[in-house]
Amino acid sequence: MLAELRGINEECGVFGIWGSEEASQYTYYGLHALQHRGQEGAGIVSTNGNGLQVIKGEGLVNDVFSNLKLDDLGGHAAIGQVRYSTESGRGIENVQPLVFRSTTGSLAVAMNGNIVNAAELREHLERQGSIFQTASDTEVLAHLIKRSSGSLTQRDRVKKALSMLKGAFAFVILTEDSLMIAQDPNGIRPLSLGKVGDAWVVASETCAFDIIGAECVRSVEPGELLIVNRDGLHAERFAPTADSAMCSMEYVYFARPDSDIEGINIHMARKRCGKQLAREIGDIEADVVTGVPDSSISAAIGFSEESGIPYELGLIKSRYVGRTFIQPSQSLREQGVKMKLSPVHQVVNGKRVVMVDDSIVRGTTSKRIVKMLKEAGATEVHVVIASPPLVSPCFYGVDISTDSELIATGRTVEEVRELINADTLTFLSPEGMLDAIGRPDTMKNCGQCLACFTGEYPTEIYADTVLPHEKEIGK
Amino acid sequence: MLAELRGINEECGVFGIWGSEEASQYTYYGLHALQHRGQEGAGIVSTNGNGLQVIKGEGLVNDVFSNLKLDDLGGHAAIGQVRYSTESGRGIENVQPLVFRSTTGSLAVAMNGNIVNAAELREHLERQGSIFQTASDTEVLAHLIKRSSGSLTQRDRVKKALSMLKGAFAFVILTEDSLMIAQDPNGIRPLSLGKVGDAWVVASETCAFDIIGAECVRSVEPGELLIVNRDGLHAERFAPTADSAMCSMEYVYFARPDSDIEGINIHMARKRCGKQLAREIGDIEADVVTGVPDSSISAAIGFSEESGIPYELGLIKSRYVGRTFIQPSQSLREQGVKMKLSPVHQVVNGKRVVMVDDSIVRGTTSKRIVKMLKEAGATEVHVVIASPPLVSPCFYGVDISTDSELIATGRTVEEVRELINADTLTFLSPEGMLDAIGRPDTMKNCGQCLACFTGEYPTEIYADTVLPHEKEIGK
Amino acid sequence: MLAELRGINEECGVFGIWGSEEASQYTYYGLHALQHRGQEGAGIVSTNGNGLQVIKGEGLVNDVFSNLKLDDLGGHAAIGQVRYSTESGRGIENVQPLVFRSTTGSLAVAMNGNIVNAAELREHLERQGSIFQTASDTEVLAHLIKRSSGSLTQRDRVKKALSMLKGAFAFVILTEDSLMIAQDPNGIRPLSLGKVGDAWVVASETCAFDIIGAECVRSVEPGELLIVNRDGLHAERFAPTADSAMCSMEYVYFARPDSDIEGINIHMARKRCGKQLAREIGDIEADVVTGVPDSSISAAIGFSEESGIPYELGLIKSRYVGRTFIQPSQSLREQGVKMKLSPVHQVVNGKRVVMVDDSIVRGTTSKRIVKMLKEAGATEVHVVIASPPLVSPCFYGVDISTDSELIATGRTVEEVRELINADTLTFLSPEGMLDAIGRPDTMKNCGQCLACFTGEYPTEIYADTVLPHEKEIGK
Amino acid sequence: MLAELRGINEECGVFGIWGSEEASQYTYYGLHALQHRGQEGAGIVSTNGNGLQVIKGEGLVNDVFSNLKLDDLGGHAAIGQVRYSTESGRGIENVQPLVFRSTTGSLAVAMNGNIVNAAELREHLERQGSIFQTASDTEVLAHLIKRSSGSLTQRDRVKKALSMLKGAFAFVILTEDSLMIAQDPNGIRPLSLGKVGDAWVVASETCAFDIIGAECVRSVEPGELLIVNRDGLHAERFAPTADSAMCSMEYVYFARPDSDIEGINIHMARKRCGKQLAREIGDIEADVVTGVPDSSISAAIGFSEESGIPYELGLIKSRYVGRTFIQPSQSLREQGVKMKLSPVHQVVNGKRVVMVDDSIVRGTTSKRIVKMLKEAGATEVHVVIASPPLVSPCFYGVDISTDSELIATGRTVEEVRELINADTLTFLSPEGMLDAIGRPDTMKNCGQCLACFTGEYPTEIYADTVLPHEKEIGK
Repeated sequence: MLAELRGINEECGVFGIWGSEEASQYTYYGLHALQHRGQEGAGIVSTNGNGLQVIKGEGLVNDVFSNLKLDDLGGHAAIGQVRYSTESGRGIENVQPLVFRSTTGSLAVAMNGNIVNAAELREHLERQGSIFQTASDTEVLAHLIKRSSGSLTQRDRVKKALSMLKGAFAFVILTEDSLMIAQDPNGIRPLSLGKVGDAWVVASETCAFDIIGAECVRSVEPGELLIVNRDGLHAERFAPTADSAMCSMEYVYFARPDSDIEGINIHMARKRCGKQLAREIGDIEADVVTGVPDSSISAAIGFSEESGIPYELGLIKSRYVGRTFIQPSQSLREQGVKMKLSPVHQVVNGKRVVMVDDSIVRGTTSKRIVKMLKEAGATEVHVVIASPPLVSPCFYGVDISTDSELIATGRTVEEVRELINADTLTFLSPEGMLDAIGRPDTMKNCGQCLACFTGEYPTEIYADTVLPHEKEIGK
Repeated sequence: MLAELRGINEECGVFGIWGSEEASQYTYYGLHALQHRGQEGAGIVSTNGNGLQVIKGEGLVNDVFSNLKLDDLGGHAAIGQVRYSTESGRGIENVQPLVFRSTTGSLAVAMNGNIVNAAELREHLERQGSIFQTASDTEVLAHLIKRSSGSLTQRDRVKKALSMLKGAFAFVILTEDSLMIAQDPNGIRPLSLGKVGDAWVVASETCAFDIIGAECVRSVEPGELLIVNRDGLHAERFAPTADSAMCSMEYVYFARPDSDIEGINIHMARKRCGKQLAREIGDIEADVVTGVPDSSISAAIGFSEESGIPYELGLIKSRYVGRTFIQPSQSLREQGVKMKLSPVHQVVNGKRVVMVDDSIVRGTTSKRIVKMLKEAGATEVHVVIASPPLVSPCFYGVDISTDSELIATGRTVEEVRELINADTLTFLSPEGMLDAIGRPDTMKNCGQCLACFTGEYPTEIYADTVLPHEKEIGK
Repeated sequence: MLAELRGINEECGVFGIWGSEEASQYTYYGLHALQHRGQEGAGIVSTNGNGLQVIKGEGLVNDVFSNLKLDDLGGHAAIGQVRYSTESGRGIENVQPLVFRSTTGSLAVAMNGNIVNAAELREHLERQGSIFQTASDTEVLAHLIKRSSGSLTQRDRVKKALSMLKGAFAFVILTEDSLMIAQDPNGIRPLSLGKVGDAWVVASETCAFDIIGAECVRSVEPGELLIVNRDGLHAERFAPTADSAMCSMEYVYFARPDSDIEGINIHMARKRCGKQLAREIGDIEADVVTGVPDSSISAAIGFSEESGIPYELGLIKSRYVGRTFIQPSQSLREQGVKMKLSPVHQVVNGKRVVMVDDSIVRGTTSKRIVKMLKEAGATEVHVVIASPPLVSPCFYGVDISTDSELIATGRTVEEVRELINADTLTFLSPEGMLDAIGRPDTMKNCGQCLACFTGEYPTEIYADTVLPHEKEIGK
Repeated sequence: MLAELRGINEECGVFGIWGSEEASQYTYYGLHALQHRGQEGAGIVSTNGNGLQVIKGEGLVNDVFSNLKLDDLGGHAAIGQVRYSTESGRGIENVQPLVFRSTTGSLAVAMNGNIVNAAELREHLERQGSIFQTASDTEVLAHLIKRSSGSLTQRDRVKKALSMLKGAFAFVILTEDSLMIAQDPNGIRPLSLGKVGDAWVVASETCAFDIIGAECVRSVEPGELLIVNRDGLHAERFAPTADSAMCSMEYVYFARPDSDIEGINIHMARKRCGKQLAREIGDIEADVVTGVPDSSISAAIGFSEESGIPYELGLIKSRYVGRTFIQPSQSLREQGVKMKLSPVHQVVNGKRVVMVDDSIVRGTTSKRIVKMLKEAGATEVHVVIASPPLVSPCFYGVDISTDSELIATGRTVEEVRELINADTLTFLSPEGMLDAIGRPDTMKNCGQCLACFTGEYPTEIYADTVLPHEKEIGK
């Protein structure tokens, strides 16, 4: 399904590297591979041991950087971020990494996730005199580090600060003499450690390793703080491990098919979900299976393979649609100008179509696609969804905004089917999904976060916990 | 396979419309759907019956136009082109439509194809005093029309001019009082006629109809001149029909999967080619089938379906690679920074992989992908090509530059296999391809041009016929 | 006075060079110095003896070119143009130099001026089969050259073509083996020949020589064709000399103060005009003299020096106003937001101000400035104009559009004074102007064109002669 | 003299407005008028009483803002800044106004000047846990305000914070419910209060009032804090008045000629300096007086008027030189390609030239201009400087970097003359300058800061006081 059309958006992707003369170049390529996690801003901070160099901007990685600028960065270590920004958090000042300068040394921080006790911590810090320049949770960490009592070592100050945070957070932190990497106690957002030559690298997804020829070493563990400096890599803990709760939507929708999360390849997991869905659905009379590009292709292939119904390209996504696309006039829109997705008439005309999608959020896109397929001649459209119904908001960095926007909240599957005008509608069962993804079943929920499907959150949620898109303090 | 990597490039796509108050808007969306046929320049010329309005520029459709500019264009009729430009023909002056202004009325022309007797005609025209401002064949037509003896009607002057051209050409011509559409006598490049509301539309591919909600009426026939004006649509002939010879590479590689050419859907034709290939290859021991994105996906799905070997996403193409991508430094390149295509390790590691591609040109990309797959752990890579070997240059508007660049020219399949380091290499037979595509077998070669596979050209070729990329007169 | 505000605009400036390895670089700097003559388009065509290289674009010289592009151009010879384009002649296709490619050799042409028999010649050429792609007179010359009977040498063909043109034209023409330079028989637009090292250069104004360290050798003579090639410089004539008729407005308004035209420095000529004006006006009771920046400063200084009234900066022009300036809302405009020009209150408050301007066109700007000065406290505003009243349109390349726009046409000086609300208004007499500029009085009108002041044109004017801004054939 | 060539640069200009529905528009025009004070960044923060809206960017005002963006800003109050940034302080994060968001209300601050005890205050604040995101002194104020003990009213917190600052500072501060304006106790940088309709405005220079039709009410007094809110304007003091010490270089070089500083018009002051210089120099044998554009024109006119030597445009400055100008190759540079300034040969050839400049910093530009004039034929070049020799660095916001760069430091006038190759060199005496500018002689040094001429600073200077260009904490 199309992210732009439905409002599920990942907050960002992070990357870090220590120990290569081409650190900034590597970071550029790494961010490029992570571009699907955020298209609205990008930044790199590098160091050669003497000060921090920073380049940030709004837009795609390729818009923000150029050969000349990368040469300016230089350095043997760097961190970077790509960012999706909610309406309220736009503006160049919110692009990460954030840099905090001080006479005793500077600090750059980038994060993927969402801190659920940020409002409380922020208020606490402001009472002590902190002032904030961004709407970002990332700034909270910097203030906490700075305020830790001065007799502690920097390492201990960072650990103490991290231990005060609740929620989902994958941090990369750069100082002139070290790269620090931290994963929240539940390990909610993916974060992998790798190596390229002698340099250590870290990234939100392993596809950022592949692009630079790095090898994946392992995932960063929940509650772990990794410190890389001239003495090598040191692993410490800032919190005991809680129940592992990796975001299910990473497997279902966000991550690139060529990434692995904790050893499981995304494409394969999705294909297995499609197969499982075909098994759960049992007999279905249909002529063709088609997936909603791009994220549902793997599940559709699996569904086809298991069901024996041929897989076809029933829907095509334009490769050239960008943010600057000219909107059609109202009359053209009514006439059916199709901007991003078009049906392949000969594939669907006169056919009973199984339309595989990864998930349903507001349902408006599903409804539109069902209509599109029927207008193209499909006699029946069977919508099959390779994940369970989304019923609860996410507080961990995914912009599924509020329950009221989720079509499945408070509705039966039949009611949803009717709203989207499908002939039948089937969701994958939670158990089927866990089974198909294939994480170790010794852990609770196989170590996955199911909050958006069940409303059970792996961390505390506070009265004043705000969703990412609602963050805009002081406005 | 990736167009950018191998040097097959279509020259352009054309679009025209008559009779809608939103003519320029429609043309914009039409060109957007044809963007894959040319990314280096775009132009629209419109008329409201009083003068011609023109906007052209280098780059993508979205770079060239904006809402404001489209509003400037206005008009009830328009033509447009997207353009791939060879090295020698770059520069804004070569972006089409070309506009020729005269005290007796102006003329705008855009073309897809290549005139094989252009050099001869140009020399002839220059002897009569014509001077040329572009390297484009399109300019030849304008001069021929202008020079036809003055007593003829404009219609007859256009027909006489068209009758002097040899080669492949799909023209759209706009004057203040008519839209003219012409297809060469062999019908080498696709050109379809459609309708949206009361307006007539024409486009290189039917996907341009789908985006604006137009219906396809029929293909423009070989040797046909269509004239649309206030009196409606008039069909005439400027030449008797020769043997139909539609470009095979349109089915194999160029056209969008959701387009139909002469009633045959491209995705379905490619899928059938993949199935046919599986039948021809017979028993093959392999674990996974993967296609080289994007153009080989359909054939790979067909191959998988017929062979029973599971289809997987073994290769991922970056959606964010643009022309401004920063090139990696030499050391990074050696380290294996992958710009556009990356293997999915878990899919191919330890597997015998069938890699389906649509065609092989220079072979460098195939070699690189085979290497990539093996480095990712593939134990065997079987390359199967869903078309016959390319051995001869194209003189009809496809930039397959010279025979010396074609790896299959003068080499056995085994020799090619060795060069690309595949374990096995299989091409689809010419008969198999024709059969799978499924055009009427009552016509010679099923009405397809096979010149690049066989060296037999459907039109005369002259001693001084130049390939598109060699065109640059007066330099 | 401000060009943007009043609609006098020069059509362009040209530059050419032969014989330097840095020809393109020199042309770039030369065009930069000529930028005031045209800000809407710029182009350079170069040659290294093998083909013509071209870069053109809309906007300022600095917007069109970049280091990389200049390196692409290379060559040992080049021509260039900066261009002001009238409403109808906009569009990249009209940016010069125009390039005409042919199998027998290519030709690039750039021009400053206006051909008064262009419509007639164009019609004649079209009847012979020529087709035009631009609205530019420059294209007429190229067709005439091409159509001259074939037995002539190129040099004779060019001379024959030039001899058919009537009007004002300064041409630079580049082929692979020569640079040709031509001046119309009346020498209406300035064109100077210079040398830098061993290379010959030509430019509309000598300030283009100063910027590159070239020396001015002489003016190109009326009716002269200069040919520079590997054999050196050859001077020929394509027409007998007519009465010399250099554009008066070049001295009055267009040329840069540091340029010399036929040996007379512009600043000095203007200052003398200011002095002469002071002499003609005789006793005037005033406290301060101020000039309307930038073009009237020299005259104002002269007026002050002769009259003994102190010169002050009573008006300031913003250096940062560009074409992208945000227009103030209507309410702000009424409140008096001043975009480009602002009065210096302390200089004019309570003072009797002599406001020196170079000329009055529509009078709207004069009226606005008088109002501005009075609002700033001036007790009297005496407008003195350092040239005679403009009463007739220009057919020689200056965009003084039609007589109806000229406030002085058909009005007495007193009537004009009343319209602009000045306390007094004085124009320089024609004799005073000629005397102050100081060209040889042995020639008729001292060899100046006075057409815009008197309506007497130095060349024939045809019934169908069109003003530059009305040119837009075939629309 | 040319700012770009010599390294004197003002840090910025500020603007603020309260009480107009067009507050953002007015701020845009105000910044436009202040553009000469900083060309490297611009920002506006506005409020409609509910949150702060911010737009900032690098480049000129016209590059940063557009109609659409201004419409986004809206608001009935706004502050803005244009900024010159030293090498170390570049980057979008340093563009002002800085915005500090807090749960109890947000704060935006912009400043012109330099805090001499910033390093000390910063260290103090960091010890208390503050962290800094910019290299700007402006951030110090925000932290001081925030940290003032909580029982104080906001007004008292601001006053207490301001009272801790030493140095030169003109602040504009915006919250959701007030606009605050503060001037340092010595009043070193200009800051004027005005009114447009019912709205209060404040600006670094009065030219920003003229552009929007505002009237100047008075200067903001040293040590004064003005608070504008729904109850109107309230004037308070945060410090007793110290000796007034307005920056002399504002009169000499920075301010626009049409601005008034404390009632004295800049053009008139400079002209009087020129006259005074002529009186001090006594008899001088010369033929022409010329000024180095743009800032020395007024003084040159005064010198001419007093000395009776005619004023001429001997030097022309290109209006089209921008930051993107292509640098000439070394060979062209040696050949004398003149980028920004060119001599008018006929004006200076064979003449004894008085070249008036406002000041000499490093002397390199003076030397270059003297050489240029002599090459253009000047027989003598007498350099007269309309201010005393610069011998000491500025700590108050002017980037006169270190004494070692000042040619006059430790050298006699004769030694400087020799270095710049002038025939004679004369500086204006300090007394002459004070007298000519004409501020009240009842104050010490007529209430001017003479530190750069004398080394006597009006405020304390600390061991760790850094020059603006050296600020880059934490690097």
